[in-house]
Amino acid sequence: TEPLVIDGVAMCSRLILGTGGIPSLDALGAALDASGTELTTVAMRRYSPGEAGSLFELLSDRGIRILPNTAGCFTAREALLTAELAREALETDWIKLEVIADETTLLPDAPELLEAAEQLVTKGFKVFAYTNDDPVTALRLEELGCVAVMPLGAPIGTGLGILNPHNIELIVARAGVPIVLDAGIGTASDAALAMELGCDAVLLATAVTRAHDPARMGAAFRHAVAAGYLARRAGRIPQRRHALASSPMEGRPDL
Amino acid sequence: TEPLVIDGVAMCSRLILGTGGIPSLDALGAALDASGTELTTVAMRRYSPGEAGSLFELLSDRGIRILPNTAGCFTAREALLTAELAREALETDWIKLEVIADETTLLPDAPELLEAAEQLVTKGFKVFAYTNDDPVTALRLEELGCVAVMPLGAPIGTGLGILNPHNIELIVARAGVPIVLDAGIGTASDAALAMELGCDAVLLATAVTRAHDPARMGAAFRHAVAAGYLARRAGRIPQRRHALASSPMEGRPDL
Amino acid sequence: TEPLVIDGVAMCSRLILGTGGIPSLDALGAALDASGTELTTVAMRRYSPGEAGSLFELLSDRGIRILPNTAGCFTAREALLTAELAREALETDWIKLEVIADETTLLPDAPELLEAAEQLVTKGFKVFAYTNDDPVTALRLEELGCVAVMPLGAPIGTGLGILNPHNIELIVARAGVPIVLDAGIGTASDAALAMELGCDAVLLATAVTRAHDPARMGAAFRHAVAAGYLARRAGRIPQRRHALASSPMEGRPDL
Amino acid sequence: TEPLVIDGVAMCSRLILGTGGIPSLDALGAALDASGTELTTVAMRRYSPGEAGSLFELLSDRGIRILPNTAGCFTAREALLTAELAREALETDWIKLEVIADETTLLPDAPELLEAAEQLVTKGFKVFAYTNDDPVTALRLEELGCVAVMPLGAPIGTGLGILNPHNIELIVARAGVPIVLDAGIGTASDAALAMELGCDAVLLATAVTRAHDPARMGAAFRHAVAAGYLARRAGRIPQRRHALASSPMEGRPDL
Repeated sequence: TEPLVIDGVAMCSRLILGTGGIPSLDALGAALDASGTELTTVAMRRYSPGEAGSLFELLSDRGIRILPNTAGCFTAREALLTAELAREALETDWIKLEVIADETTLLPDAPELLEAAEQLVTKGFKVFAYTNDDPVTALRLEELGCVAVMPLGAPIGTGLGILNPHNIELIVARAGVPIVLDAGIGTASDAALAMELGCDAVLLATAVTRAHDPARMGAAFRHAVAAGYLARRAGRIPQRRHALASSPMEGRPDL
Repeated sequence: TEPLVIDGVAMCSRLILGTGGIPSLDALGAALDASGTELTTVAMRRYSPGEAGSLFELLSDRGIRILPNTAGCFTAREALLTAELAREALETDWIKLEVIADETTLLPDAPELLEAAEQLVTKGFKVFAYTNDDPVTALRLEELGCVAVMPLGAPIGTGLGILNPHNIELIVARAGVPIVLDAGIGTASDAALAMELGCDAVLLATAVTRAHDPARMGAAFRHAVAAGYLARRAGRIPQRRHALASSPMEGRPDL
Repeated sequence: TEPLVIDGVAMCSRLILGTGGIPSLDALGAALDASGTELTTVAMRRYSPGEAGSLFELLSDRGIRILPNTAGCFTAREALLTAELAREALETDWIKLEVIADETTLLPDAPELLEAAEQLVTKGFKVFAYTNDDPVTALRLEELGCVAVMPLGAPIGTGLGILNPHNIELIVARAGVPIVLDAGIGTASDAALAMELGCDAVLLATAVTRAHDPARMGAAFRHAVAAGYLARRAGRIPQRRHALASSPMEGRPDL
Repeated sequence: TEPLVIDGVAMCSRLILGTGGIPSLDALGAALDASGTELTTVAMRRYSPGEAGSLFELLSDRGIRILPNTAGCFTAREALLTAELAREALETDWIKLEVIADETTLLPDAPELLEAAEQLVTKGFKVFAYTNDDPVTALRLEELGCVAVMPLGAPIGTGLGILNPHNIELIVARAGVPIVLDAGIGTASDAALAMELGCDAVLLATAVTRAHDPARMGAAFRHAVAAGYLARRAGRIPQRRHALASSPMEGRPDL
C-alpha cells in the first residue's frame, strides 16, 4: 500500500477523522486507536484553551497529526481569522478550510470558499479545501494552490453516503492533488465506494463519533478504506448485463 | 469478531471463494492466501480426477475446507447425482446446491431447486442453497432444512452488485440459518454492503478470479467483509434529510 | 399508439387499476374516469354480492372490463375455487392469479403459483399471473399458457417503485406475451419507467386509491403510462459519461 | 392545471425546449408541435442572421416565445455581450444565462455565473440562470434577482437523468422563483421525476432533438411533465418498508 502524501507528508492511513460529537475523551481515544488514523481535524472555534489542551494531548500521545479546521465560519474573513489563530496556537500551516453558507444546510459557500482559499494560500497556509461536489469548483481550488481538495458526498451529518458518484469521478479524473471525500459518509460501504471512485482518502466524523459503538465503527472504516483502496488498484471486473459462468462447462477445464 | 458457524463448524473468515476463472493454480493460491478464506467452493462437474487432485491438494495444504457445488446442473436429478458423486469423492455431506434454469441467465430454477433441496436433505446432505433473491423461496429452503441460504445479488458473473437490497433485508429479517450473499458481487463496496444488510457471509468467484490482480482483489474483499461486518454491529448513524453539525457551535463544548 | 392486446381483446389504455382502498364509490368513479382505464381488477373474496353489485354497475356503466383476481388466496386450491367462483359470477374466463405466501410480505408463492397457473389453464381460464420479478418464473408462466405475466416492482402497497429494473428488462427481453408491471408503483415516474423498460402495461391500486387526491393521481398515471410508452418507441438518446453540447459552436451551424 | 408564470408571463406548458442538434427545420417543427411547448431557447452565438431568420419564423408561426441563451460563453463578459446582442435582435429582456467553465464538462462556472447574473439584472435583463445543482448557488441566484433558477440534473447531453435528487429537493424547498430542471434529462421518467421533486418546469434539448423519433419523444415529454406535475399535486402514498394489502380481507369490506 502506497502512503498518502499531502504537502510532502506521508501517511499510511487514508482515513481522516473529525472529533466532534464523541461522548467522551475516552471514547474518542478508543475510536482513534481502532481507526488507525494518523490525522485528525479539530474545530478551532469550538474549544476553550483548557479543553483543547486535553484533546491535543490525547492526539499527541498517539502521534496523530492535527488538522485544524474553520468549522463555524460563514465568510472568508472569519475563516482567515480562525486560520491565523490555529497557526499561532498549533504551529502548523495546515488548515482545513470550511466556509459554510448557512446553519441549515451546512453546505459550502463556493464564492467565499474560493476567496478564502486564495487569501490563505497567499499567506502561506497549506489549504485542505472542503467543497461541494461541483467539479469546476474543485478544479479551481487546486488551481489556487490548495494541497488537497475535499468534496462532500452529502451534507454534513446526514449519513446519506455519496449522492452523486458521477461528480466524484469527474473530480478525480482531473485532479492533480489528493482528493478526500469529506462529509456524508454513513457506513463502511460508503467509504469503500469513495476509494473505488478514486478518492485518495476519506474524512468523516459523525459516522464514527455518533455510532452506537464508535470504536467498532472506527475499525470498520479502517477496513473499508483499505478495501476500497485495494479494489481500485486490483482492477475490478467490468459490469455486464448478462450472466457469465465462473466455471464454464464447455470444452476442457482450463485450470 | 464472532465466528461464522454453519452446520456446527466455526470459521473465522466470512468470505467464501469460488475457484472458477482463475488463470493458474499459482494465481489461485495467492488469491486464496490474500483473501483469508477458510471455505472454497468447487464445481464437481468441471474437473477430471487428475486436475481436481492438484486443486484439492492446494486447498488441503492451506487447511481450506471444500464446499463442492452442483454448478452446471439444470434439474434436481442432475444435482442429486452430482451431490452423490461429491460425497463419495470428497467424503463430505456439504453441498452447495445450484440448479440453473438456462445457460443464458444462469438464474436458479426455484421449483427444481426446492425439489432438489428436499431430496438432498432427506439423504443426509448439508445443503447450502444458491437461490434467487425471492424472500419466499429463501424461507422455504430454510424450512426444508438447508444449513445455509445463499441468495444472489445479481446474475452470476455480471458484477452488478446487489440489485435489490430490499429483498436481501427481507430475507435476513426472517432467517434462522446463515444467509450468504452469493453471485453478482463486483467490487469491495458490494461485499461491505452485503454484510451491512445483515448477511452472515459473502461468496464470490469471478470478482476475484477475473480481476486484473486476483491476489490484491482477494485482500480487498477480506477487508470489505470485515468492514461490513463491523459496521453492522457498530450501529450506524441514521440517514437524515437535513444536515447536522458534528461540531455544534452553540453553548458549551461537550467534550 | 398501438392498442394493448391480451387474449385477442384490444384496449387503448395500458393502465389497469385495482379498486381496493378507495374511500367511496364516488371517489372510485372519478379516479377511473381520470385514469382512462379500460380494465379493472376486483378482489372476488372481498365483496358480498350486494356490494359487488354496486361496484360492477359502476364499472359496467363506464364500459370498463372486469378482471377478477384471487387476492387473499394462499394455496393453488384456494385460487382455483376463487377463480371458479369468479367465472360463474362474472361470466368471464379471465382471472388475475394471485397466490400469496404470507400476510406479512404479500409476496407471491412461486411453486403454488405455477401449480395454480397450470391447472387454471387446463380448465380453460385465461390467466394473468401476478408473480415476483424472477425472470425464470416469468418465463415458466408464459410456457404454461398464461395470457399475461405480471411481475411486481416491489411488494404490494409499499410504493417503493421498481426495485430491480434489471430483472424487469430480462423478463421483457424473453417474453412472448404481454408483461404488466404489477405492484410497488408509488408515483408517476415509476409507471413511466416501467413502460420505458419495455412493459406492455402497468397495474396499480394503492398508488391511486390511497393518494391524497385519487382522481388527480389517476390522471397523472394516464399521462405517465403514455409518456413511457412513447419514450420507449421514440428511441431515447444513449447515456454518456461525458457532456455533449446540444448546440455545438464549432464549424457551420447545421440547422 | 395551474399555468407556469415567469416574469409575469403565464404559460400552460411546463416543458421548455432547446433547438440544438435537430436534423432539420421540419423535424424541429414536428417535435415542437408534439411537445406542446410555448417557450424555446435558442443559442444566440450559433446562428447567422439568415439561418436565425428561418428558425425565428418557424417559432413565431407557432406563437412560441423565444428565450435566447448565452451557450458558448465562458466568462461573464462574453455572456453580457451575447445578452445585449440578443436583446437588440429579439427585442426581449429575457435571457437564459449560461456561463460554462470548459468544453469538456460544459458545467457552469459558479463565480462567473453569479457575477454575470448580477450585472445582467442591473441592466434590466430578466435572467433565467442555468446553474449546477448546488443549493447555495441556486439561492444566491434568486437573491440576485433572477426570474428563474435552472439547476442541472446531469451534465449537458449525457442523458444521465437527475444524478442528485436530494439537491433538487433542497433547491425547491427554499425557492421563491420558478425552478426549472435543465440538462441531463434522457427520457420521460426523468422529466416526470423532476416535476415530482417539485420543479416548476423542465428544459431539455438533446433528449428530443437527438432521439430516434424527435416528434414522438416530444409527445412523450409532454405527457411526462403533465404526469409529474399532477402526481406532485395529487399527494403520493408514502414509501413503506412493508407490504400493505390494497384489498384487506379482514372485517367488513369498506367500499
